[in-house]
Amino acid sequence: MSQQFKGIIPPMITPLLSNSELDFKGVEKIVNHLIDGGVHGIFVLGTTGESVSLSYQARRDLIEQTALNIKKRVPLLVGITDTSIEESLNLATLAHESGADAVVATPPYYFSLGQEELFEYYWDLADRLTLPLFLYNMPSMTKISMSVETAVRLSKHPNIIGLKDSSANTVYFQALKYSIDRVDFALFVGPEEIMAETVLMGGNGGVTGGANLFPKLYVKMYEAAVAHDFETIKVLQKQILEIATLLYTIGKYNSSYLKGVKGAASLLGICNNYLASPLKPFLDKEMTQISNNLEKIKVHLKESSLI
Amino acid sequence: MSQQFKGIIPPMITPLLSNSELDFKGVEKIVNHLIDGGVHGIFVLGTTGESVSLSYQARRDLIEQTALNIKKRVPLLVGITDTSIEESLNLATLAHESGADAVVATPPYYFSLGQEELFEYYWDLADRLTLPLFLYNMPSMTKISMSVETAVRLSKHPNIIGLKDSSANTVYFQALKYSIDRVDFALFVGPEEIMAETVLMGGNGGVTGGANLFPKLYVKMYEAAVAHDFETIKVLQKQILEIATLLYTIGKYNSSYLKGVKGAASLLGICNNYLASPLKPFLDKEMTQISNNLEKIKVHLKESSLI
Amino acid sequence: MSQQFKGIIPPMITPLLSNSELDFKGVEKIVNHLIDGGVHGIFVLGTTGESVSLSYQARRDLIEQTALNIKKRVPLLVGITDTSIEESLNLATLAHESGADAVVATPPYYFSLGQEELFEYYWDLADRLTLPLFLYNMPSMTKISMSVETAVRLSKHPNIIGLKDSSANTVYFQALKYSIDRVDFALFVGPEEIMAETVLMGGNGGVTGGANLFPKLYVKMYEAAVAHDFETIKVLQKQILEIATLLYTIGKYNSSYLKGVKGAASLLGICNNYLASPLKPFLDKEMTQISNNLEKIKVHLKESSLI
Amino acid sequence: MSQQFKGIIPPMITPLLSNSELDFKGVEKIVNHLIDGGVHGIFVLGTTGESVSLSYQARRDLIEQTALNIKKRVPLLVGITDTSIEESLNLATLAHESGADAVVATPPYYFSLGQEELFEYYWDLADRLTLPLFLYNMPSMTKISMSVETAVRLSKHPNIIGLKDSSANTVYFQALKYSIDRVDFALFVGPEEIMAETVLMGGNGGVTGGANLFPKLYVKMYEAAVAHDFETIKVLQKQILEIATLLYTIGKYNSSYLKGVKGAASLLGICNNYLASPLKPFLDKEMTQISNNLEKIKVHLKESSLI
Repeated sequence: MSQQFKGIIPPMITPLLSNSELDFKGVEKIVNHLIDGGVHGIFVLGTTGESVSLSYQARRDLIEQTALNIKKRVPLLVGITDTSIEESLNLATLAHESGADAVVATPPYYFSLGQEELFEYYWDLADRLTLPLFLYNMPSMTKISMSVETAVRLSKHPNIIGLKDSSANTVYFQALKYSIDRVDFALFVGPEEIMAETVLMGGNGGVTGGANLFPKLYVKMYEAAVAHDFETIKVLQKQILEIATLLYTIGKYNSSYLKGVKGAASLLGICNNYLASPLKPFLDKEMTQISNNLEKIKVHLKESSLI
Repeated sequence: MSQQFKGIIPPMITPLLSNSELDFKGVEKIVNHLIDGGVHGIFVLGTTGESVSLSYQARRDLIEQTALNIKKRVPLLVGITDTSIEESLNLATLAHESGADAVVATPPYYFSLGQEELFEYYWDLADRLTLPLFLYNMPSMTKISMSVETAVRLSKHPNIIGLKDSSANTVYFQALKYSIDRVDFALFVGPEEIMAETVLMGGNGGVTGGANLFPKLYVKMYEAAVAHDFETIKVLQKQILEIATLLYTIGKYNSSYLKGVKGAASLLGICNNYLASPLKPFLDKEMTQISNNLEKIKVHLKESSLI
Repeated sequence: MSQQFKGIIPPMITPLLSNSELDFKGVEKIVNHLIDGGVHGIFVLGTTGESVSLSYQARRDLIEQTALNIKKRVPLLVGITDTSIEESLNLATLAHESGADAVVATPPYYFSLGQEELFEYYWDLADRLTLPLFLYNMPSMTKISMSVETAVRLSKHPNIIGLKDSSANTVYFQALKYSIDRVDFALFVGPEEIMAETVLMGGNGGVTGGANLFPKLYVKMYEAAVAHDFETIKVLQKQILEIATLLYTIGKYNSSYLKGVKGAASLLGICNNYLASPLKPFLDKEMTQISNNLEKIKVHLKESSLI
Repeated sequence: MSQQFKGIIPPMITPLLSNSELDFKGVEKIVNHLIDGGVHGIFVLGTTGESVSLSYQARRDLIEQTALNIKKRVPLLVGITDTSIEESLNLATLAHESGADAVVATPPYYFSLGQEELFEYYWDLADRLTLPLFLYNMPSMTKISMSVETAVRLSKHPNIIGLKDSSANTVYFQALKYSIDRVDFALFVGPEEIMAETVLMGGNGGVTGGANLFPKLYVKMYEAAVAHDFETIKVLQKQILEIATLLYTIGKYNSSYLKGVKGAASLLGICNNYLASPLKPFLDKEMTQISNNLEKIKVHLKESSLI
């Protein structure tokens, strides 16, 4: 079932016309940009997509528009993360009707659950879903880290087909890899800086935010890691780290990464530079930094024929 | 403006018919129970009301039904906490139309804002609201503690009329009291164990969860604190701590308090023992403990003529 | 046994001649300053005393010199906090030989213990001590908060006579007060901003850092709280909060409080402005702020005849 | 300078005769066990060595005895982590006199420093040391994570020659690798589960606790990673994860890893099963689990000729 899920599945940024309104044309544009870049799937309504900041109307529109524009060229994964399971199920129903291939959910993120409660929540959710479910470990936002034991127990549900880990903790990732006894269970990593090494050590791919900007780079890196091509890995890793360093750390916000991705995307003509409230785009002086840094990055990517 | 807000304003538990469906008759029952107990206001859709776990339909129904049943006998405060400002505003509009007196909002709780971003978020929200706003500091759930400086800056917005602090940190509470230079700015405290002392030191009242069970106890304590009646304070504080100790610490869940309030409320005939997903009611053996402990508490409350 | 411990027991700052060398004459000076101010005891080698930053030679000298200068006029409490129980015991032996009245210890603060391990640690320590022991809850530094249950169990050891809580969480403090069934068990609070309210609610006193600067202010506040004299409490609380606001929050360091107390003490002629490595005194511009703020504070204290 | 530091440098467990007394003969035994296993260096007085729990006498004895037994066969690194810089320097002096090759220090771990203060602390320490210094990032114990920027600035000090990262966060590790512009700056990783992948991605080796038990396994893994020998990596990674899973997670203590290493070492005849206070060895039933699990591990290691 999850065999189809591997490689680079970017967490698609959400194109907006203001700090709340969806940009329908922007959705078409970015979907084509990603597929032209060779990505293996598209994930909407994740953290990078600012899912929980959007109105439900905007979330529903985004699901439909993305499905419409993908036209089944690559798998579509839809985030249904919510504090209310009823609203998660509503989004999942629409995702199914729109032709999505799987849904993705973090733990509920207001009340702090224990591991047993987390297990019961996910098991219940998976029972009630008609699409397969990816678990999404995101402790910095949700205040809870799914234990390896909980993940192992959940991996036995036939409708739970994989896990995306955004903890950046590869000890945890390796423990999952070792402990989950199911060959068709897909393990994806969030942070792009460690996508190569997790694939080298048995991971199935990356949900890499930078692929919104330069999809080919991350696709090539995934392929190099699968092929154990260390010469290429070394070159591309430097470029991936350059992007993370020059674009995601401006301004010392907790959301510098999100502001950086969207700011750079706007300079590359991929979408407007609006973030949904409560986040805001970079200030002008910060955008000047992004602009200058982007020029450096583009020079290096051109040298490697990656743009 | 906020002069009307003082005393005991319980965070009303949400009566349910299942783990998702609102109990309309239950709303009537608990509203009357609280008003009969002498409370000075009612706050729906707070943490104790499991707000973010409810579907939006249930939240809307709850607002309307509560307003309908209060019939303007006491002020109604409505929680509009959300990760999406659009959805907060939708709830606020309905609250206003239903006759509510104020709204209450925690910071957005998925993305971690900085203090400046938090200030801008609240200022923007207050600008767009038609009802007055209470800030709600709830760091254990939202991952952010509003700084004293941010609260001081926000207190200058004419539409922001008070703050409810659930941090349990009274150094913070005293710093707010000292720093906010506006006599009509209302400071409420969350944890009932420290309601008396914060009122003694200048606070305006408490959003005390235990008042769902025994409203008279907390109303009497508020009055004793206002009157500096230490003989009464001493007696009642023992009972308030007995309730917290015997009802809120069973089972070592993060949500032992919520399970305890609702479990005890069901035994007292106030509402059913359903919690909204992802939380669940206490197990049978835990309910046996609650039942036994409740008997002890009732003996003591009867001795003080508080039930 | 602990009946003798009540009131204001300042956590004495450690006078230094450099960032590591003890100022023997400074010890005499500050001891007399505190006793002249009416304090009910002196606590050396606490957090405010920068205990763990000092060499063991300096710690030993400080114990001996303080005892020598106190001359039994008030009780002496000695901090023996350490990650090595052997070194704690060495300090305790010297404290006893020097004439100290009790010792004080936080949990070990490198390895994170569980509650059962914490209980065993303290029980073992108390067994091996010849002086009575105060528990010291200091979660921000030690990464562990002693549970109420652990404190209750430890309160049954005949050699454990009290607890100092620096958590700032008065829900916790009230739970201790309610749960510890021993009239001669002394509960002290750390943060001076909440000393009055904890004494009003049954606490035994405060380990107030500001008493290094203005001992009379905190002694008067303690007396006012014991007497339920709210007129005085209101006036003094404003001054106590003014001190905390104007002296302890400069420069946004984690150690702004420590830098502020020592900086102000140096301006008041109480001791030199050296902090032990790794901390450093305020920069010149920060000292200018402290100096200006101190003038304001002194005007208000003079109006109340407190200096 | 740091060219000599690479490969497997185990954080040596400290052999004890009780919960406080050093086992001199045990030191000889384990030193030879490690060197016979092919390790590239030995690190004493780290977290695994329970450094901060030992009396200073025991620490001094351990430094001397280890140096005496190594007889310059491999480099010796000595932990000088302390809350008092004076005591760190005392240990460093003895380390130098005993013939150690480098010292290692975490940040001070009682007071929480800011990044600028952390920079100044380490720069000052490096200035005053006569041996080269390894930085040691250990946020779970010290409450502070050294920022990449701080590490970059510190890497410019000629006496700071490397960094050991125990954060388990490989995004951080990759950022260090990318940002530190000095070829002879050695980057070591703590958790053994991710040693292979960090070496594949440019790391210099591992400070792997499990090497106390099975040094050859980790040495072979290091060599396989350097050689990009994925067939071997796959086999050994499974064994490394089996050890971590079966030996380090018994009993749900924060210190399960430490208890597990020492418990297993005692069963393997490497040293006694004493931990320094405040930690304690596993209970009997937990040791039974360790014993059973160890048998499974040994079967697998024998199959691979690693014991």
